[in-house]
Amino acid sequence: MPTPAKAPLSDATRIFGERVLARRNQLGLSQEKAAELIGLHWTYVGQVERGQRNLTLHNILKFATGLEIDAGKLIENLSAPIE
Amino acid sequence: MPTPAKAPLSDATRIFGERVLARRNQLGLSQEKAAELIGLHWTYVGQVERGQRNLTLHNILKFATGLEIDAGKLIENLSAPIE
Repeated sequence: MPTPAKAPLSDATRIFGERVLARRNQLGLSQEKAAELIGLHWTYVGQVERGQRNLTLHNILKFATGLEIDAGKLIENLSAPIE
Repeated sequence: MPTPAKAPLSDATRIFGERVLARRNQLGLSQEKAAELIGLHWTYVGQVERGQRNLTLHNILKFATGLEIDAGKLIENLSAPIE
């Protein structure tokens, strides 16, 4: 029985991950190739795309630089999770 | 002799901090009042303003929500630190 996929940490990390995935697909990049450009491990890139990482400012900027998109675009209109 | 102020972690955290400080001043908020609205400790807010924190996505969104500014605006045009 396949292990159930881990849920996203929040709507914010889920949407961030969806935006990363959409941009990666737009560029026609594999996860491995994108990870190389971003400068992070491909397993980490996969976790971010699945919304499973509350990544730091520096890592957000690595994603933006690697995927040639402004960092602001990746987090615009997101709201903080309710605690 | 006063202890020397800790340097910012990177240009990105320094600029992020400057943007937070500018927005807080624009709203005429003290650090304590801003911390209350952001939902984080005022000492943490001070460290972020001084560029000393590589904060997470969730905390970036807390700053944006608390200071009533779109999160994208706080990180637009920033680049990842060179490692």
